[in-house]
Amino acid sequence: MIENLWRGVAIIYTKTGEETAKKIENWIVSEKEVPAISFTYSSTDLSYIWSCYDAIIFVMAIEGVVRSICKLASSKDKDPPVIAVDDAGNFVTPILGGHWGANEIAKEISSILGGKPIITTASEIFGKDSVESIARRLVAKIVNPEAIVKINSAILRGEEICTDGFSIQGMREGKDCKYIITTSNFQDPNKVVLKLRLLPLHVGIGSKREVDVNLIYSGLMEALSKMNIEPSRISSISSVREEVGKVAEMLKVNFILYNLEEIRIFSNPCLTPQSEKLKEVGVKGVAEVCALMSSGLNPRLVLRKVKLSKSATIAIATGE
Amino acid sequence: MIENLWRGVAIIYTKTGEETAKKIENWIVSEKEVPAISFTYSSTDLSYIWSCYDAIIFVMAIEGVVRSICKLASSKDKDPPVIAVDDAGNFVTPILGGHWGANEIAKEISSILGGKPIITTASEIFGKDSVESIARRLVAKIVNPEAIVKINSAILRGEEICTDGFSIQGMREGKDCKYIITTSNFQDPNKVVLKLRLLPLHVGIGSKREVDVNLIYSGLMEALSKMNIEPSRISSISSVREEVGKVAEMLKVNFILYNLEEIRIFSNPCLTPQSEKLKEVGVKGVAEVCALMSSGLNPRLVLRKVKLSKSATIAIATGE
Repeated sequence: MIENLWRGVAIIYTKTGEETAKKIENWIVSEKEVPAISFTYSSTDLSYIWSCYDAIIFVMAIEGVVRSICKLASSKDKDPPVIAVDDAGNFVTPILGGHWGANEIAKEISSILGGKPIITTASEIFGKDSVESIARRLVAKIVNPEAIVKINSAILRGEEICTDGFSIQGMREGKDCKYIITTSNFQDPNKVVLKLRLLPLHVGIGSKREVDVNLIYSGLMEALSKMNIEPSRISSISSVREEVGKVAEMLKVNFILYNLEEIRIFSNPCLTPQSEKLKEVGVKGVAEVCALMSSGLNPRLVLRKVKLSKSATIAIATGE
Repeated sequence: MIENLWRGVAIIYTKTGEETAKKIENWIVSEKEVPAISFTYSSTDLSYIWSCYDAIIFVMAIEGVVRSICKLASSKDKDPPVIAVDDAGNFVTPILGGHWGANEIAKEISSILGGKPIITTASEIFGKDSVESIARRLVAKIVNPEAIVKINSAILRGEEICTDGFSIQGMREGKDCKYIITTSNFQDPNKVVLKLRLLPLHVGIGSKREVDVNLIYSGLMEALSKMNIEPSRISSISSVREEVGKVAEMLKVNFILYNLEEIRIFSNPCLTPQSEKLKEVGVKGVAEVCALMSSGLNPRLVLRKVKLSKSATIAIATGE
């Protein structure tokens, strides 16, 4: 479950929970290889976190978590999974999104903390994918949102869902189910069909002065493979380093070269905050900015920046 | 802790949690001798429950609890303790009011369910009394609400609080603390003084046709003793049975006789819902209605109705 949270896990902690928070952060980054960023509670604008990350883990007392999220929670299908961990890491409690991943995340986190997952949903349902989460993982737009509730209810009831045009764990490829999620033009008025339109991917690359083209190419391929996304979906590669253009050539896609001034003035609420180190040297991370700038209207992160090596980072975005 | 929840504990459950809910309800009523009323989730107007009961226990998954209470939660000091119990009774989790009683309630409830209390507050602080809860238990009005936050913070920090004019467990009687809660006219500009004004009590009695005056008198005395309230604070006794007037005579207080039509047309959102049995015979409970009707402006329940025997009930209210 956690390895699918490509937009990253936000970990929010108060001072007394710092040790537990860092333990979770390090484990997610090193073992699960997805981005995890920890934020101190007082410095955090939760409304951005809410829409920018794939899961939120609070290291705080449950009451504090509840009071913090009340103004942000909207509906079961839209909210990110929210998990509360007490300072000592004894209890890992899914607060929102139990059926949509929070139970499973809580189980994984509790095992590394030596704590206990507090699963309180009526049935222990783990790792179900909501339609929204499937669309996010396929990097697709839901064409007919009016079908979302019906399909999500069917998923929770344990009914069989077919996929058409793609495959995903736990669902069968085919067109003979009552409920179908399709990326093709399939239609059947007697079935509940949810249509997805695959979106183009825009890759942003950050690199030190010495650009290692092969490392970047293989790192990108590996990242896409983990995400189960075909390289043919890449629409552009962008960077501030001209040499990265060779990676675009290898993939036969558009290359966009940005300059540092363009990077400096770009802003997006979901950008990963600058590390202290980058702040010191006055450099802003470029991978996410490049990916978002090249994604057109309504750009949004698909893969929060990950390190390919000490010298290169990659981020993926999409847009309309 | 639970034995002080005179306005009652509301237990809210969905069908799958009914068994656990009834177990909690029966235990509170029989062992703790305070009112406990269980409500099915779908039939419940939570906004009334929120302000009418001294604690709320949900038998539901935590996510359902959080989504239900978000629109009602206002602040740490004003909200009732809220506890979530999963259907099976495995986990008893304080959701709100951990420092103000919810932790302790969760511990007690979990022990009778054979479950585990999920205490996530930084320090295990049990059974602290907020100023509001002290005022409620003394049946007093807070004269200077601007001092509430200072005193509550001092209580949570573990600072010594003095009481003046009354005694309460965990606080020392005297005037030499920095923080003082007083029911007298004590003033000291160098201290933080919270003033309470004791309110008059109005007792309502429900009784079958055969009125057992001695039973009612001794039951009332016992209830007041449990509440640690002096009988001299009673301002009136009321009933629909003329014979109850003798109890008022014994106590030398005002007696008010109501008729059934007055009972029928009175309404207050905090009235205990009619039992199925009372509904069948077309009779409305009278004790709470009498107590509230005789309490003047802004009447509110102090003691939700409790049975003195099979033939009599008592309720206490106050007003301004």
